[in-house]
Parts: sequence; structure tokens; C-alpha cells
Amino acid sequence: MPLTKPPALKPFDTVAVVAPSGPFDRESFDAGLAVLRSRYDVRLGEGLFETARYLAGSDERRTAELVDALNNPEVKAVFAARGGYGAMRVLEHVSLPRLPHKALVGFSDLTALHAALQTAGRVSIHGPVVTQLGKQSAAVAQQLFALLENPSPPPVLHGQPGQVPGQVQGPLLGGNLSVFTRLLGTPFMPALTGGILLLEDVGERPYRLDRMWTHLKLAGVFKQIAGIVLGDFTLCEEKDASYTSADVLASLVQETGLPCAGGFSIGHGEVNVAVPLGTRVQLDATQGTLTFLEGAVSA
Amino acid sequence: MPLTKPPALKPFDTVAVVAPSGPFDRESFDAGLAVLRSRYDVRLGEGLFETARYLAGSDERRTAELVDALNNPEVKAVFAARGGYGAMRVLEHVSLPRLPHKALVGFSDLTALHAALQTAGRVSIHGPVVTQLGKQSAAVAQQLFALLENPSPPPVLHGQPGQVPGQVQGPLLGGNLSVFTRLLGTPFMPALTGGILLLEDVGERPYRLDRMWTHLKLAGVFKQIAGIVLGDFTLCEEKDASYTSADVLASLVQETGLPCAGGFSIGHGEVNVAVPLGTRVQLDATQGTLTFLEGAVSA
Repeated sequence: MPLTKPPALKPFDTVAVVAPSGPFDRESFDAGLAVLRSRYDVRLGEGLFETARYLAGSDERRTAELVDALNNPEVKAVFAARGGYGAMRVLEHVSLPRLPHKALVGFSDLTALHAALQTAGRVSIHGPVVTQLGKQSAAVAQQLFALLENPSPPPVLHGQPGQVPGQVQGPLLGGNLSVFTRLLGTPFMPALTGGILLLEDVGERPYRLDRMWTHLKLAGVFKQIAGIVLGDFTLCEEKDASYTSADVLASLVQETGLPCAGGFSIGHGEVNVAVPLGTRVQLDATQGTLTFLEGAVSA
Repeated sequence: MPLTKPPALKPFDTVAVVAPSGPFDRESFDAGLAVLRSRYDVRLGEGLFETARYLAGSDERRTAELVDALNNPEVKAVFAARGGYGAMRVLEHVSLPRLPHKALVGFSDLTALHAALQTAGRVSIHGPVVTQLGKQSAAVAQQLFALLENPSPPPVLHGQPGQVPGQVQGPLLGGNLSVFTRLLGTPFMPALTGGILLLEDVGERPYRLDRMWTHLKLAGVFKQIAGIVLGDFTLCEEKDASYTSADVLASLVQETGLPCAGGFSIGHGEVNVAVPLGTRVQLDATQGTLTFLEGAVSA
């Protein structure tokens, strides 16, 4: 599958915000929108603030909004308002790889859209959603804008060395553990062979992390990938437990025998550094670094 | 795949209790054990009460306990102490269809073992775990004993008619929604074609029910099965929500277009009627009944 990258953005380009997942808090959204508007001309669809139970409006609305943003020639990139849940449901209604390729920015529930794009070799951006952007430091926003505008590789990221040392290279895959594992056994799981699997999550108790990880194991994922990168696992502790989610993750990583580095500021924590999914990276589990071998966008 | 049934039990037969999943409360266990001991000669393994984080001891201990119980010629059936989490991990360490076929009784996390047995055409018993048995009425225990001892079909079960009417026949599949969907894309998912899918769950918020259901959908399960039977969905409500888990399940069922009946007393509620997995049943979604076309055990 040949790799394709979305076109680079320029400051003041027109971009769209879409809500393919859950409804969101207006205050957090407005704070993030202000950050986005400091750099781009941002368009919001009419139905963006709709709510249908735990979804940001009906499947039809959310799908049409995403399709319209990708099809509109004036729109140069698409940002997700918030995660939550709902992107998986959109996959049933539209084949994303048949639409124009533009930078799609988001994480968490948006992992489903990234994965679907990656099945067709399309690079996609694992980065802050709008409701998160206003709570991040200015540096995070600057790094996101640089990733979207500059075709050269972003700076190396520093995490913690893993128990299993080693250096491996491969395309960066994954995102949210809960959402990524919900694509196992479906046509929306990208090719895993030789990949570096990024995982992060929020609000999942340790036994649930184990259950999802064991799903990956039983599905043969750890026999296919080359290494593992762990982002933040936020609010994943069991109340009154004698063990932490980090203890559990350390055991699970050890069982795979794969090079792994953790502690990267990627996910639901205070810093969510944007990274390109689909591009080649080098994981150094001995040093605890993630080096990007290419940029996210085409010149 | 030819169907095989475990041999029928007799009163006072020797049976074993095993804990392949999570650790458990001793008081609930003792109450259930008393019920079991009213009918059978019950053996407990030495390590049954071990705890390792959220597991009832190490994978090695839990696996060996299950293997020993199945291999021991004196033991005629195997009962699970409790669900929780951990049975999936055992699947990595032992091929259950290579061991002697005995009635295996449990539900919830034990869905993983039932599914693995069903991949080899083995009938298995979706019924109360020991920690639940003491809280059930005497009628539930009597019905479980009858299912294990009597090769004829158990009595018809009455639920509620579904939105999509129709009568369908097929082998009964499934169990716990969370656990069953964790087998998608793995070798432990039984053949689905023409099956009647039983689903129940506990402690899953509505958007999570939707996410698991959508996983089944994206994996093509609803194109393969013939009908759906819903048991109890216990403690599955969202706090302060304007919708219930029943509303969400009704929408999800409607989307499949499959005959479905719900409200069966199967799962984590006050009554958990034992049913055989793998045997042929008739679902009448118009009447809301589940008719068993054969028994669980061989004469």
C-alpha cells in the first residue's frame, strides 16, 4: 500500500471543525476554537452543536458534516471538536478513502477514523481535539500547527526506557486502546505487520486494560507489530487497589517481549503532542525515544 | 462441525469448582457452595482462594486447576466459582477442545471458555456461577440440576416480544456482550452462521453497549446470525440521562432488522436461568419465547 500524505496547510487557510463523535461542553470548545482561530479561518457547520443521546446528532448528520468538509475544496483540513463515542458508527455510512485526502486532526474516539484512513495508506494526525486545545500549553498548539504546515519530520519525543530494550522502525499505528481494539475483526483495521503500535486511554480500570490488551494478544497483533509506544493512561486506577495501572501495563508489555517505551505525552493528559499516524518512526526502547523519520504532510 | 454434548450428571456425582477468572467474596461463595453440595459431591482445589491483583491467582494456577478438573476421571462436571475477568487469559495456555468434554457451568467472564468450546462443536452451560447461586431462588438451582441431569430439552422461556417479529431456529451462541465481543478477530469465536445470539451484560454504560454492538456490526456478525435473545442488562444506566439502556438497546436491535426478543431472566439479575450454548433453539420474536429443541447433555 503506497503511503499518501495530506497537503500542507498555510496560516489563514480555511479549515473545518466537525463532530463525528459525542456532544461537547461549549466552554471548552470555545477556548479551543480561539486557539484554532489564531492560526486558521475556521468554519463550523450548522448542526455542530446537536445532541442525540451520547452522540453529536444523528449518524446522518455527523456523516454528512464530515463528508461535506472533506469534499469542500475551500476546506484544507478537518479538526474534530471532541471524542467521546460515535466515530465508529460513521464508518458504516461512508468510505473515507474515497473522499479527498485532507489532514484530519483528533484522537481518542477519532482513532476509528484514523484507522479507516490508514487501511488505504493515508497519513492522519493523532492530536488534540478542539475541546482539549484550550487547556493545552501554547507549545502544544504551535507543535500541531508546525506538523500541519511543515513537511519535514517533527522533533524527537522523549519518554521512558522500557523493560524490553531494542530499536525498531515501522509505520506508527493505533491511538486509543479501547477504540482500536473495537476494530479487531473488522475491515477498518489497518495492516499491522512491522508497525509501531501507539496506545493511550482514559477512564479504563486495570482489569479492562488487561482485557483489551489480551484481545490484541488473542487476535495475534503482538506477533505482527514490531514495537509499542505508550502514551498517557489517565484516570485508569482501581479504587483502593494495591496495584496501579502502570504495574498492570508493565506486566502486559513484558509478556509481549516487544520493544516498548512509555510515558510519552500523548493522550488525555495535560500535554497531548500531535503525531502523524501512518508515517515511519523509529522507536528506541533502550533510550525511551520516538524519532519521526518523515513529516505528516506533503509539500 | 458435529455437535457433542457432555455426559449427564447424577445426584451425588463428584464435581469440581474452579476459578479461572477473578477472586471472589467468601461469604457469597459459601452460600452457593451449600446449594451445590445439596446435590453433588463438590471438590475444591487447593489454590481456589488465591488472589493476584484482579485474578484468582496466576495464569498458571488457574489454567492448571481447570485442566486438572477436566482431566480427572472422578470429576463429572466443572462449575465456575465466579466471573469477573481472567478466563480469556487461560485460552492462551490451553486448548480446551483437546481435554475431556464435561459440563462446564458459568456465565459472564466464562463466556470466553464457552465460546472456545463451541468452536469445536461442544455444548456448554450458560448458568449461575457459585457466588451467584446462593442468591438465586431454589427453582433456579433445581432448573440447573435438571439441565445437567436430564437429556431432554428444558422448558420454554418467556421474555418480551421484539420490535422485529419472526420465528427463527439455530444454535444458541454468545453470553456476555463485553466478553463475547473481545473474541472478535480471534480463533476463539465460534461459527456464527444461522446462530441465535444471546447477550447480557452488567455495569456497562449505554454508549459502551452501543460501542460493543457496533463492533459486532462492523465485524459482520449481524449478517451471519439469524436472531437475537437479550437477557438482563444490569446496572447499565447512565447517571442523570434522559434515556435508558433499554432505549439504546431497542434502537440497536431495530438497526439490525433481525428477529429479537428480550427480557429473559438470564444474566446478572436476581434470576439467572441456566441454558445450553451450542444446542438448537427456536426464537419466536413475535411471542417473545425461547424454545429449546434439544437438551444439554447426552444420556
